[in-house]
Amino acid sequence: MAKVGIVMGSDSDLAVMSKAAQTLEKFGVEYEMKIISAHREPEVFFEYAKTAEERGIQVLIAGAGMAAHLPGMFAAVFPLPVIGIPLAGGALNGTDALYSIVQMPPGIPVATVAIGGAVNAAVLAVRILAVSDKELLSRLKDYQEELRNMVVKKDEKLTELGYREYLEQK
Amino acid sequence: MAKVGIVMGSDSDLAVMSKAAQTLEKFGVEYEMKIISAHREPEVFFEYAKTAEERGIQVLIAGAGMAAHLPGMFAAVFPLPVIGIPLAGGALNGTDALYSIVQMPPGIPVATVAIGGAVNAAVLAVRILAVSDKELLSRLKDYQEELRNMVVKKDEKLTELGYREYLEQK
Amino acid sequence: MAKVGIVMGSDSDLAVMSKAAQTLEKFGVEYEMKIISAHREPEVFFEYAKTAEERGIQVLIAGAGMAAHLPGMFAAVFPLPVIGIPLAGGALNGTDALYSIVQMPPGIPVATVAIGGAVNAAVLAVRILAVSDKELLSRLKDYQEELRNMVVKKDEKLTELGYREYLEQK
Amino acid sequence: MAKVGIVMGSDSDLAVMSKAAQTLEKFGVEYEMKIISAHREPEVFFEYAKTAEERGIQVLIAGAGMAAHLPGMFAAVFPLPVIGIPLAGGALNGTDALYSIVQMPPGIPVATVAIGGAVNAAVLAVRILAVSDKELLSRLKDYQEELRNMVVKKDEKLTELGYREYLEQK
Amino acid sequence: MAKVGIVMGSDSDLAVMSKAAQTLEKFGVEYEMKIISAHREPEVFFEYAKTAEERGIQVLIAGAGMAAHLPGMFAAVFPLPVIGIPLAGGALNGTDALYSIVQMPPGIPVATVAIGGAVNAAVLAVRILAVSDKELLSRLKDYQEELRNMVVKKDEKLTELGYREYLEQK
Amino acid sequence: MAKVGIVMGSDSDLAVMSKAAQTLEKFGVEYEMKIISAHREPEVFFEYAKTAEERGIQVLIAGAGMAAHLPGMFAAVFPLPVIGIPLAGGALNGTDALYSIVQMPPGIPVATVAIGGAVNAAVLAVRILAVSDKELLSRLKDYQEELRNMVVKKDEKLTELGYREYLEQK
Amino acid sequence: MAKVGIVMGSDSDLAVMSKAAQTLEKFGVEYEMKIISAHREPEVFFEYAKTAEERGIQVLIAGAGMAAHLPGMFAAVFPLPVIGIPLAGGALNGTDALYSIVQMPPGIPVATVAIGGAVNAAVLAVRILAVSDKELLSRLKDYQEELRNMVVKKDEKLTELGYREYLEQK
Amino acid sequence: MAKVGIVMGSDSDLAVMSKAAQTLEKFGVEYEMKIISAHREPEVFFEYAKTAEERGIQVLIAGAGMAAHLPGMFAAVFPLPVIGIPLAGGALNGTDALYSIVQMPPGIPVATVAIGGAVNAAVLAVRILAVSDKELLSRLKDYQEELRNMVVKKDEKLTELGYREYLEQK
Repeated sequence: MAKVGIVMGSDSDLAVMSKAAQTLEKFGVEYEMKIISAHREPEVFFEYAKTAEERGIQVLIAGAGMAAHLPGMFAAVFPLPVIGIPLAGGALNGTDALYSIVQMPPGIPVATVAIGGAVNAAVLAVRILAVSDKELLSRLKDYQEELRNMVVKKDEKLTELGYREYLEQK
Repeated sequence: MAKVGIVMGSDSDLAVMSKAAQTLEKFGVEYEMKIISAHREPEVFFEYAKTAEERGIQVLIAGAGMAAHLPGMFAAVFPLPVIGIPLAGGALNGTDALYSIVQMPPGIPVATVAIGGAVNAAVLAVRILAVSDKELLSRLKDYQEELRNMVVKKDEKLTELGYREYLEQK
Repeated sequence: MAKVGIVMGSDSDLAVMSKAAQTLEKFGVEYEMKIISAHREPEVFFEYAKTAEERGIQVLIAGAGMAAHLPGMFAAVFPLPVIGIPLAGGALNGTDALYSIVQMPPGIPVATVAIGGAVNAAVLAVRILAVSDKELLSRLKDYQEELRNMVVKKDEKLTELGYREYLEQK
Repeated sequence: MAKVGIVMGSDSDLAVMSKAAQTLEKFGVEYEMKIISAHREPEVFFEYAKTAEERGIQVLIAGAGMAAHLPGMFAAVFPLPVIGIPLAGGALNGTDALYSIVQMPPGIPVATVAIGGAVNAAVLAVRILAVSDKELLSRLKDYQEELRNMVVKKDEKLTELGYREYLEQK
Repeated sequence: MAKVGIVMGSDSDLAVMSKAAQTLEKFGVEYEMKIISAHREPEVFFEYAKTAEERGIQVLIAGAGMAAHLPGMFAAVFPLPVIGIPLAGGALNGTDALYSIVQMPPGIPVATVAIGGAVNAAVLAVRILAVSDKELLSRLKDYQEELRNMVVKKDEKLTELGYREYLEQK
Repeated sequence: MAKVGIVMGSDSDLAVMSKAAQTLEKFGVEYEMKIISAHREPEVFFEYAKTAEERGIQVLIAGAGMAAHLPGMFAAVFPLPVIGIPLAGGALNGTDALYSIVQMPPGIPVATVAIGGAVNAAVLAVRILAVSDKELLSRLKDYQEELRNMVVKKDEKLTELGYREYLEQK
Repeated sequence: MAKVGIVMGSDSDLAVMSKAAQTLEKFGVEYEMKIISAHREPEVFFEYAKTAEERGIQVLIAGAGMAAHLPGMFAAVFPLPVIGIPLAGGALNGTDALYSIVQMPPGIPVATVAIGGAVNAAVLAVRILAVSDKELLSRLKDYQEELRNMVVKKDEKLTELGYREYLEQK
Repeated sequence: MAKVGIVMGSDSDLAVMSKAAQTLEKFGVEYEMKIISAHREPEVFFEYAKTAEERGIQVLIAGAGMAAHLPGMFAAVFPLPVIGIPLAGGALNGTDALYSIVQMPPGIPVATVAIGGAVNAAVLAVRILAVSDKELLSRLKDYQEELRNMVVKKDEKLTELGYREYLEQK
């Protein structure tokens, strides 16, 4: 049963949002993925938001661009954590979405990540679930180890090759 | 019966929003004024938005600050014109509200006015109603005449007094 | 007879502005489309603005980029609703046009839509006309139904295919 | 035993950050409150960050202004959720802190709330803990009910008094 | 006979704009000062703009805030130099006026000075007139000498007193 | 003998700056064009700035990007009008250059045009020279006529072809 | 003999700039303090910049607001490190000065610190001098110790008093 | 033995950061180049930062994008000069990195250069080292001569060819 819902307002957001799904898969966290627009189908949106908790969803990840209302409206209806991903797109390049998502009024928080930060939205969801799941916490520590090792290897390669050869090999 | 609904999310917005009411009164347009929060009482919000048209509301004016979702969510439910007023407040001083209101996705427009532009929201509502109301159109023309005369008088006073005396009298 | 005037300052704006025309056609609303520059031919501009109402124009849609004065100057002369579309272009990418259009002084409102939001400008014009036109209101409701169905279908497709296959098919 | 750590870099942040403490108290969530600067005492910072989990901390709330590195550095060391509060202060009025906190690189998320959003940081922490704590979830629902009622009462008062009297009574 | 026209859209701009007048007086340049709104009295505006050259005006200085159309519209009608002063005021604090004034399309330049830069607008007007007026050029050189001396004196005072005493005497 | 100096800091600015030259040629105004860097060769810069007036230069046009000091430093040394063109380039896309050029302190004005506005810089120079040159003023009026006719023709073409065919022919 | 020059363009900057002087005094570094304007007295500026090195100045600290050219012009003439302090003031609140100072072209660096960051400018100057001065390096380490202890004491006080009493005592 | 450390958080920054290395090579300054992430391997980071001084590093150059903590965290641990290079990348195009690097709190300065300004970071490092190294100072003066000559040659070429031919040859 899905513990995380990944929701976006349009399939134009799918390429970015799929990175959240891939990251959750990597951690073995079950999720469901939906295209739901708070603006174009408010009743579908409300129904989904109201029933999510009883269907077992523990964290919602919502991505939206421009006047990005989806995450904030989820936070108004769904009582557990909502993570918002501002998406670039349009002339303001994601600043509009960032402000629309992060500047929520007192009482209704959205946990906002970087513009286009779908990987981080998923990692944050895993961290939230790991509060009560030792196994996930252990995987998070392995993941941090992995991140560390990747950088260490690149640094060793740079020391070995020098920057000129490193850049040529890229 | 009210033709225009003036809605704000919090009574901290009332001082600004009351200028919209005063302006409608000046034009003799009936309105109702409500404090409704899409974030704090989404079901109250939806109920109001869904029933507004059948209760005779022809234009909705919604003011909101920060992550200002109220106007856009009204535009998602109410089929007639929605006018959005971005309100200053908080660290970003209204830029957040402006972007959250004006950058709506295709299909769901909000007619956005200046930050804090409550007078203009009301005048725009009157212009909208005047499309099918000759009497209102005539009052709009009188209003433009009035605006013109106010500037003309100030200019005459400046010519008469010079800027030094004018500034002292202010 | 045209009820809506669609005006732009230069033919470089035509590709975006034509989406407003297409949208009005979809709703069966008659319009006229003009290239008029307030800066390069102020007298042509004034003549058009002053005679628009008597020629039956009920709503003006004006698109402009950079120091975008066209919508605001229309609102100064034409007494019925003026809808402004800020156009991206130039180094500031539409922020300049957005501020030049939305920040109008009290008394002279421009109903501003998103940067490049030509579809929404047209939908807003239709909503304005629908205040006194039941047939148009009915078409607006059909349009919202259409928008809803498009999202529902995409969501069903995503559920059916999964994100990997969905992205490949795009 | 404290489940939430509230950390700030300077006592000039205490007035804002204390709202997070008050909110946690309201929900009956135990917390500890610390002044720790990642810039001025990096070793104290590292020690606290590394031992927080084993001391039972499940969520860290970190507030910082200007080049706000505290939340991001916590997220680099502490494996469970870190909530970042950008604080206004200085010439850029919190935009600097917002960007410094929210724009974290892939793998190291900070759950960012509004500029100055200490209440929301605490509510988000409660939502996170409520994922595995039915009692907290129930208190969150009561809290949303409370928020709703506050707005409803203000709306009733506005209807009763009208805006003129309402504004006078404020 | 006035060579320079100083125009503003509202008497709320008079305190700033009067510095332009004072500066012109200092240089002995005759000017006229007007309150004219392109938005509220477009016909008055056009009449003034069209007749300015034949009445002997050689340079126009126009100050405006928010969606500042006055300088650009002058440049569209008056063929000689137009100097624009963006005025702070409103939530965007002059950025809106700056963009609305400086970002003019090719062919219709406005010589833009700093936000609130009324002194510089006047000095620029004097520089423009000095192109064909040796006497004014000579006064400009005296003025630069004056500016230089003011700084030299302050520097000498600082050297003499040291910063502590200097600050106390201020 | 050159009346206008066109100066840029680097030959990477030449493509944009050459539009100023072309525009001056169109008006028959003699100019000289220089690559001079205030940062890389301050003594060359000073020498040029100090001798420009005595060599007959009446207006200086200076284009610069990023921390654009060239126009402001010219205004500090050269007593007649200096026109500044902010150039896009680098990560801030010309906002840095705009602020560096337009925000001059009292006493030292730079007549700033749009980002990349080389045509307008030249037209402004012509307007300045036209204050004391009837022949140039007459050419400016022809130029405005030309601009007007170009728009009129495009509008006629649009009316004739309709937007679909017009867009295809582009 | 002064090793550090502290220069500002106007005595309105003195209150902020004096913090740089106080900080240098604290480290026992000799300095000279000057009011010199690159815009209002370019020849004084050049003379000072050209002779600074031979007079023994090893680091220049320059503070400036708005179109802040002073630090960059110093970097063009003086061959050793130049530290720039963007000063808030005017409508853009220091963003203009920040961009004017930090965005220098390749070859001519200015070491830029925070808006209003006069203390940090001085500490940076000390760090630069400490590269070849063991005694200064040792004082820098004491200073970092001091900073650390200040935070530790505040944290202890907070633990002792709790936030309510702490805030009351402030 | 390396006197300058060039550090970046990811090999995606290498292309820009290698310009710092090339510039140091040009001046004959020995350096070491490292990929170290404060976020992904905080313990590696701390170890490097703490031991850098004793290993002979006199200046650290750190480049980072987005929520750029690397330079500021170095400045918290390493007592000598730290130079920060904000890197463009991501939706905010380097503004986020600029604010995260330059807006450091009092006591912990980072010498910030332009967005992407790797050449200038290296030149600044050389200027810092030149405070106590006459040979380097002499090379810096040669370098400024070189910069000057490059501009002089381009200017001569422009005078010789005219802008049309110059642009064709590019």
